Amino acid sequence: MFNRHSTFYMPARVFQEQDAVINHARDLAALGKKALIVTGRHSAMANGSYQDVTRALDQEGVGHVLFNEVEENPSIYTIMKARDLGLSEGVDFVIGIGGGSPMDASKAIALMIRKADKDISYLYHPDGDSSALPVAAVPTTCGTGSEVTGVSVLTDPDRNLKKSIPHKIFPALSLVDGKYLQAAPASVLANTAFDALTHLVESWLNSKANDFSRMCSDAGLRAWARSLDVLRGTKAPGAEDFENMMYTSTLAGMAIAHTGTTLPHGLSYSVTYFLHVPHGKATAYFTAGYLSEAPREDREYILKAAGFSSLEDFQAVYHRACGPLQADRERLLEVLEQAVQETASNPAKLALAPFAVDPQMLRRIAFFELNSEA
Amino acid sequence: MFNRHSTFYMPARVFQEQDAVINHARDLAALGKKALIVTGRHSAMANGSYQDVTRALDQEGVGHVLFNEVEENPSIYTIMKARDLGLSEGVDFVIGIGGGSPMDASKAIALMIRKADKDISYLYHPDGDSSALPVAAVPTTCGTGSEVTGVSVLTDPDRNLKKSIPHKIFPALSLVDGKYLQAAPASVLANTAFDALTHLVESWLNSKANDFSRMCSDAGLRAWARSLDVLRGTKAPGAEDFENMMYTSTLAGMAIAHTGTTLPHGLSYSVTYFLHVPHGKATAYFTAGYLSEAPREDREYILKAAGFSSLEDFQAVYHRACGPLQADRERLLEVLEQAVQETASNPAKLALAPFAVDPQMLRRIAFFELNSEA
Repeated sequence: MFNRHSTFYMPARVFQEQDAVINHARDLAALGKKALIVTGRHSAMANGSYQDVTRALDQEGVGHVLFNEVEENPSIYTIMKARDLGLSEGVDFVIGIGGGSPMDASKAIALMIRKADKDISYLYHPDGDSSALPVAAVPTTCGTGSEVTGVSVLTDPDRNLKKSIPHKIFPALSLVDGKYLQAAPASVLANTAFDALTHLVESWLNSKANDFSRMCSDAGLRAWARSLDVLRGTKAPGAEDFENMMYTSTLAGMAIAHTGTTLPHGLSYSVTYFLHVPHGKATAYFTAGYLSEAPREDREYILKAAGFSSLEDFQAVYHRACGPLQADRERLLEVLEQAVQETASNPAKLALAPFAVDPQMLRRIAFFELNSEA
Repeated sequence: MFNRHSTFYMPARVFQEQDAVINHARDLAALGKKALIVTGRHSAMANGSYQDVTRALDQEGVGHVLFNEVEENPSIYTIMKARDLGLSEGVDFVIGIGGGSPMDASKAIALMIRKADKDISYLYHPDGDSSALPVAAVPTTCGTGSEVTGVSVLTDPDRNLKKSIPHKIFPALSLVDGKYLQAAPASVLANTAFDALTHLVESWLNSKANDFSRMCSDAGLRAWARSLDVLRGTKAPGAEDFENMMYTSTLAGMAIAHTGTTLPHGLSYSVTYFLHVPHGKATAYFTAGYLSEAPREDREYILKAAGFSSLEDFQAVYHRACGPLQADRERLLEVLEQAVQETASNPAKLALAPFAVDPQMLRRIAFFELNSEA
């Protein structure tokens, strides 16, 4: 492709290396005098990332306070609770540590602390203002790419809504270290790695893809191939694999920062919501179907670049690594039907597919895995 | 390569498209209320870029004043003269239009207007402070990549010094439009295209190369190959070629933003200074020699990615497009010897080569073209 409207914007300063947090303690300290550290309940303690961050801050004489109550699919009420803590503690920057939930939450919290006069409705208010406290991001899973995007996906439980806020808040600093993946359960590793792969596929097969975004997608797909043996189960992951999986995820994030996500993500929300399927496993469930509808040369390019011999090979690795959806067939049919309905009524997601999508095609994609089994 | 210390930082918002300046008038206007427009003496008028910028600013009600006295290899005194104009006119942002000289100058001017209390010595003062007025960059040649780097190369005539200032000032906004190349003489097109190629080679063959920088180098080399027919002289350039050559140059800039340049640039300075050879032609003069010393697999990869069948093919295209150095053999030998001496005493440039460089090797690289002729 040579695209006549190409754009590139990814302002985060990224350091990927072993001991990135400790090595870049001064870059972290340059962001402010007192940090609100935002994590989930357990993993940042278990994988050592919280200890690294507090050691780095202590070493530089920077204050910090912990908010460790971010749940999966963080709610807007969680954001407001953390904002209150940040305001009462007088923090001037925010550090998000974890997978997508804490990192996405940290951006929204940084926004709301800066906008201390605004109420909860401001989170989804599209005024085009994205000024926020500086954010640093420390990923501990290899899927979201939130460390290099402006995206913050939140949940409004009152409206049964899971959606990106309109404010685009890029981290100023992203400290990426594969060692935090060592503590991740195999299922988290697999599900988030497939989330990254889905980002690479959805950014390549995207109406907003341009030369710069494809540069990132292409590099990401080729990096993904280097960890394929781990996901096939034919190699135990070593330090180099963990670093490579982090790198892949960051590249995938740089790609979707430019394109957004499309059908597999759109279809995944019902599956995640009603069947409690982890995000990456749910998005990747629809990726083979999405690839099957793509122009042949794109499909063949993507599969080859990512190291797969065929679409069936992709499916086999996915099934082995992520396992089946845990739902009886009747319930699954119901939820998939709902996924089709919801995505069909989301023109923004449909418009990002680089080909015309009719309800029949959407159904073929949604039921592709189920029909492959038969 | 998988590099254990990878870093990425390129905060400029880049838009590459036809009529980028007019299409993004509002992004330009968002940078301030009154712009200092920085250009060379003629080309910004001749290629229409100045007219586009003033039309965009007028349309948005943003004031502007012109400083059109940037010479090739801009001097620190030119910077100070423009700073005085900017201060007296009360500008709050700077727009650099042109090749490397005006864009590099615009960064230094934006720095010195912001630091109104500092004198000329501040330009080379390494205090680590790079805060400056916002800069927008509009490239009109296809070599420098200054629109996506923090680099500003200035000349201090009192010290016979041509050197990057230590302050790193990235443009906030880069508006890239291939149409400005239509007005460029064939020699400017060729020399700057070879400057971009040299950036791609020097960023790949660089001790600071990492996965992110190589992603940019690789995409740039493959883009370069798409315009090779134009430089071979077998195809007249069309709008798509001009856009592709701009895109290549921007990618090459993103790569060197991470690695800096090494031996060919180091060797080129004497040739530019004493023989008045255009920058790109001078750097590319040493590129075949640099490639000849590289590990075979790197050399073969680079040549193939850029579309060349062999090193001799590279040399043939270079000679055809850029022509011979205009100097008698005796004078050339003298200047090349001086280039070797100066580069040998520049440890920073030597350290960026990814292999050990001894004086014999430097001589082989410096005299490679001359010896190829024999």
